Amino acid sequence: MRISELSRVTGIPVATIKFYLRERLLPEGRRTSPNQSQYDDTHVQRLRLIRALVGVGGLSLAATRDVLTQIDEPTGLTLELLGTAHRMVAPELPPDVDLRPVVDLLRRWGRDSCAEAAGTDDEGRVDDALAALAVALRGLDDAGFEVDLPRLDSYAEAMMQVARTEIAGLPVESATAAVRYVVLGTVLVEPVLLALRRLAQREASAARFPLPG
Amino acid sequence: MRISELSRVTGIPVATIKFYLRERLLPEGRRTSPNQSQYDDTHVQRLRLIRALVGVGGLSLAATRDVLTQIDEPTGLTLELLGTAHRMVAPELPPDVDLRPVVDLLRRWGRDSCAEAAGTDDEGRVDDALAALAVALRGLDDAGFEVDLPRLDSYAEAMMQVARTEIAGLPVESATAAVRYVVLGTVLVEPVLLALRRLAQREASAARFPLPG
Repeated sequence: MRISELSRVTGIPVATIKFYLRERLLPEGRRTSPNQSQYDDTHVQRLRLIRALVGVGGLSLAATRDVLTQIDEPTGLTLELLGTAHRMVAPELPPDVDLRPVVDLLRRWGRDSCAEAAGTDDEGRVDDALAALAVALRGLDDAGFEVDLPRLDSYAEAMMQVARTEIAGLPVESATAAVRYVVLGTVLVEPVLLALRRLAQREASAARFPLPG
Repeated sequence: MRISELSRVTGIPVATIKFYLRERLLPEGRRTSPNQSQYDDTHVQRLRLIRALVGVGGLSLAATRDVLTQIDEPTGLTLELLGTAHRMVAPELPPDVDLRPVVDLLRRWGRDSCAEAAGTDDEGRVDDALAALAVALRGLDDAGFEVDLPRLDSYAEAMMQVARTEIAGLPVESATAAVRYVVLGTVLVEPVLLALRRLAQREASAARFPLPG
């Protein structure tokens, strides 16, 4: 198909498609004349993936490129995939974050092996997931918003339930499949979970405060 | 205290504090001379709240202003608070999103009253929480990332557990307390949940794929 057809099928403007081509997020089509190329279904799929990452996932252009590269040319073991996926989509964290409150929580939850990993690694980097939690908890504290321990327990339990289902479903037949699952699962499932939480809040609220009449 | 002391206590640069003053996010201090003002603990708290909303919460300046206004001068009933809070922090949604897949899901979960609300309201607005879920699901679909129904069930169940705890703790003694709880709980707890999910994924992954040796 020509670029105009590609635009029609995906609903993505021609100018945007040309931008993705220039930025090499989208592979070039098969050139049929000096000014024309033919595109196929792989381009349709790739464009939809880019839209999902940039739009729903809220990724920057650079992060989108990293994710696509990782999917196209997976590197690393399955074991290291989560770290890679998380780092790619993690917000920039301050280097001086205090991990002690998080370590206390992890010990409370009996997750001691996790707590012990809470140092800096060989390259002096602080563990991303722990740092993200520390920053998030500091945000609550800064705002004077108290979340008591039973509620944090309940959050941790709910997220453990979520993660168990996710990791159980991780495909191991190929590195590409595993990378796709981990990277897209991290980026694209977050908005699903947050939307479900909001819906559930409204229902729980309606149950606690029924409308009169 | 003077502005330099306010900066030292909060760790927020003087230039940033002046910016927040100009933007009226931070109330003026008590003027003690033409070029000097005195600030107190309420300014410290407000600055920490702003930092939490802008930094951890990732809100824009405009959204931060909305949140602060809502906390300072709460409007609306407790029942309407969730909607207000969600709208303030919700990303811009496309107006033409197809809600049918979401309605099917809600019926599957026996949440029929919620499904019936899935129209446009009197002002022609699509329900925000439902639209957010529809957009998030379309993102998965666009990316060719299949999430089966049992997994969605599990997500919905986990988020319902989260929401029940949250709504049960909603303070009802004053509108200000309720607004604070809902607005900050929405914005600032999201990063906590996402960080906990990532940590849990890593643990579940280590359990499924133990390191050799």
